[in-house]
Amino acid sequence: MEITADPGVPLVLITRRFDAPRALVFRAYTEPDLVARWLGPAGLTLTVNQLDPRHGGRWRWTHYDSDGKGFVFHGPYHGTPSPERIVQTYEFDLYPGVVYLNTITFDENDGVTTLRQSTVFPTVEDRDVYVEGGTETGTETGIRASMDQLDALVAQLVKE
Amino acid sequence: MEITADPGVPLVLITRRFDAPRALVFRAYTEPDLVARWLGPAGLTLTVNQLDPRHGGRWRWTHYDSDGKGFVFHGPYHGTPSPERIVQTYEFDLYPGVVYLNTITFDENDGVTTLRQSTVFPTVEDRDVYVEGGTETGTETGIRASMDQLDALVAQLVKE
Repeated sequence: MEITADPGVPLVLITRRFDAPRALVFRAYTEPDLVARWLGPAGLTLTVNQLDPRHGGRWRWTHYDSDGKGFVFHGPYHGTPSPERIVQTYEFDLYPGVVYLNTITFDENDGVTTLRQSTVFPTVEDRDVYVEGGTETGTETGIRASMDQLDALVAQLVKE
Repeated sequence: MEITADPGVPLVLITRRFDAPRALVFRAYTEPDLVARWLGPAGLTLTVNQLDPRHGGRWRWTHYDSDGKGFVFHGPYHGTPSPERIVQTYEFDLYPGVVYLNTITFDENDGVTTLRQSTVFPTVEDRDVYVEGGTETGTETGIRASMDQLDALVAQLVKE
């Protein structure tokens, strides 16, 4: 897995490979029960409040810490999500007015899916706040944990 | 007026000052009849098909060339637009799946409004396609023409 966040560029790039067809990885992104099983840092639990994977449809989820404090993210989809591509914007209730844009593509070769995620921010400062994260361990740790959890989930889905 | 589009960074920054209160500049962005009078390159006419300036509301407009060919842009607003800030994502029918994010802020001092626009793209390649533009003269010329037209419009609104 690679995470790139170059200084001075309001961008975070992630590349990660999964030993699973992209149809399964796509399911893990678009079925609420599956999303709740992998998305978010270790130690937080996720409630998917809304997930309407079509053009203009909205999603909303809440990460809860061990004290029950919730962190709400929400936004719309742009274009209807497909196993090739998901585009969605994010807003975080702690930073109203700051919007960032995620474009995720899935490429499949010989049963291996390569996920590439581009996250762009209005400013480098907004990107840096995101990378530093709201948690003690920072966002990069959370991304790595999420991707590991997603890997474990799709490995299980492959067997089903 | 400054336009910044550094190599390797998927970003276009615009700064422009107007001799008008920001409430008037904001009106020029959110009232369909006014938008149609300034937005777009010289030589194209604009039809505002939809403009719903509230959180989750959608906008849609079409630039027509002299042959009557239309170029459709559309997307949602993120957060309710205010004289301080407008955030909206853009999709262009010619490039489905490519979404870009505009964050515009308006600062007013002594009756002069400074507009700052950050446009971020999923990739540098997407940014470069945007900057090269679909027209013979390129997007930068179109942006400068739009901003000059906006300047003329708000100068007129100041007098009304």
